[in-house]
Amino acid sequence: MTQTSRGFAAHSPTEALVPFGFERRDPRPDDVVIEILYCGVCHSDLHTARNDWGGTVYPVVPGHEIVGRVVSVGAEAKRFKAGDQVGVGCLVDSCKQCASCKHGHENYCPKMVGTYSGKDLRDGLPTYGGYSDRIVVTESFVLKMPDGLDLKGAAPLLCAGITMWSPLMHWKVGPGTNLAITGLGGLGHMGLKLGKALGANVTLFTRSPGKEDDARRLGADRVVLSSDAGQMKAVRGAFDVIIDTVPYVHDINVYVPTLATSGTLVLVGYLGPLEPALNSVPLILGRKAVAGSVIGGIAETQEMLDFCGKHRITSDIEMIAMNEINGAYERMLKSDVKYRFVIDLASLGR
Amino acid sequence: MTQTSRGFAAHSPTEALVPFGFERRDPRPDDVVIEILYCGVCHSDLHTARNDWGGTVYPVVPGHEIVGRVVSVGAEAKRFKAGDQVGVGCLVDSCKQCASCKHGHENYCPKMVGTYSGKDLRDGLPTYGGYSDRIVVTESFVLKMPDGLDLKGAAPLLCAGITMWSPLMHWKVGPGTNLAITGLGGLGHMGLKLGKALGANVTLFTRSPGKEDDARRLGADRVVLSSDAGQMKAVRGAFDVIIDTVPYVHDINVYVPTLATSGTLVLVGYLGPLEPALNSVPLILGRKAVAGSVIGGIAETQEMLDFCGKHRITSDIEMIAMNEINGAYERMLKSDVKYRFVIDLASLGR
Repeated sequence: MTQTSRGFAAHSPTEALVPFGFERRDPRPDDVVIEILYCGVCHSDLHTARNDWGGTVYPVVPGHEIVGRVVSVGAEAKRFKAGDQVGVGCLVDSCKQCASCKHGHENYCPKMVGTYSGKDLRDGLPTYGGYSDRIVVTESFVLKMPDGLDLKGAAPLLCAGITMWSPLMHWKVGPGTNLAITGLGGLGHMGLKLGKALGANVTLFTRSPGKEDDARRLGADRVVLSSDAGQMKAVRGAFDVIIDTVPYVHDINVYVPTLATSGTLVLVGYLGPLEPALNSVPLILGRKAVAGSVIGGIAETQEMLDFCGKHRITSDIEMIAMNEINGAYERMLKSDVKYRFVIDLASLGR
Repeated sequence: MTQTSRGFAAHSPTEALVPFGFERRDPRPDDVVIEILYCGVCHSDLHTARNDWGGTVYPVVPGHEIVGRVVSVGAEAKRFKAGDQVGVGCLVDSCKQCASCKHGHENYCPKMVGTYSGKDLRDGLPTYGGYSDRIVVTESFVLKMPDGLDLKGAAPLLCAGITMWSPLMHWKVGPGTNLAITGLGGLGHMGLKLGKALGANVTLFTRSPGKEDDARRLGADRVVLSSDAGQMKAVRGAFDVIIDTVPYVHDINVYVPTLATSGTLVLVGYLGPLEPALNSVPLILGRKAVAGSVIGGIAETQEMLDFCGKHRITSDIEMIAMNEINGAYERMLKSDVKYRFVIDLASLGR
């Protein structure tokens, strides 16, 4: 039977999110039907609701930091059973044929299906995200939530967590790595926690004084005010890896000299032209790299969740009811959240 | 005794190179005294002679693609003996203490001493390069030239060769790697030869039609006209590694989409701001990187020379006499050389 769902949707770039009733697809043999308990609120939700990146399919039900409980599974879905605690992140399908899929990097598959504002590869129907009471997902894109982790705080791991974890793994951050995180928001605070748990020496770059105590509590060994030339000079050549979470245009030329020889600065937050122009001189004379990374593959997302389970890592969150989402968006635009809003879907009523 | 040398020097940014007599240092116990046979002519020679990058110490005797024969060795220099065929590249000393030196990356040592326009770390005297009859070099910075390699064509390996080899190794180019080289000059033609010998599938990006035959002769499996949108579209996502040798400002945004997921574009030619602005979108959505690299360390230079000896790889060269250097510079500025000038130092007279 079709799964009737209730949620919140944006119907145009300029309208607030409002209650929305819609149909989920009939479960296919390899599907898992999930009752959504909590859903983190990512900046991408807001950007998509407002069509900031173009291409939004309306009505859009955002939400891709989903934690829930399995209601039922299809006949061929063997990995889960009713009652299991599961997660769904930013992607719900991919082609499974391309080089990226074969390497477990479904997040780089050209046909990757987003959890919302996407189109199902088999039936062509739109995908709707986690601002809703339930979701139907192919089991190979469903994650197992580790036991003992607070599920509310774990929801943001599905996007903010994996967005930081994937580059930490790809650029081999581990014990003794000198790691810097630029920006202390939803992504940045997860970077501090994960980097510290991996054994790295962790530095936070911030433009705002007064974040020192919180940064240290979250895992930073050092806080550097990037607007202070003296502090920046003191860390020249210091970092093997910098993960830059700042989501707006900013001058990355100030960070490149703080990379060690052969170091890499990884952009995960800002999509657009790098202005002022990136200077190639320190790249060439120090074999440095500027790279990018987006979310992660399914296997590495599970690996991250298991790591977080073992190390008791969750996001610092502020719970909201579903009908508080529009106000939450306004606060996010002012960076007024420590460090992630999470929606309690029980607030929709059952 | 002091080594009286003759060579050619520039005395100011605007003057032609002229004959110049000067003193080489007394050989120290770990020094090797080398009679220079051939010296390749690198674009850096011209840039330094004309102070294009600032900081040139005049008079400057350029030349860092040096091949010669050992005349004598100091009491503690054990690796070489009189008569050995040796090479000297872009650096003649480094601190030996820093992380770069300890990793064999003397080329990234902050105290690295250039073969010319540098200052010796021990006596503070200026260094003079290979446009001269002899040179005195600490033995740990002297390379062994492999037997059976034409020494004239081997001279450019000491800079052009290692400039390509080091990124080929660092970014793990080998059998089956999809490699592209941007630009067909002194560096680019070595990239084609080395990439092919390493077993990569090699593509040349060029803006100039008519280079197809030569590129294929040098090792290219494919030639793509980067000004042709259709040809560029046909290679979207194709390359694991692109080494960009173009020495002037150019739009690298046209090349980034031709990288495969997790691919890297390595700049080795252009020092300056990347304009128009580098777009972070394809970097982030494809985990791609833009990096730089400059020359190489001593151990990897020897490794490259040994590889070239085994595979009979030399540069395509045009021999000139020492007093033809100023005309050669003018032709280089017009890219009118296939693909490297090499000075026969016998032309100085002995």
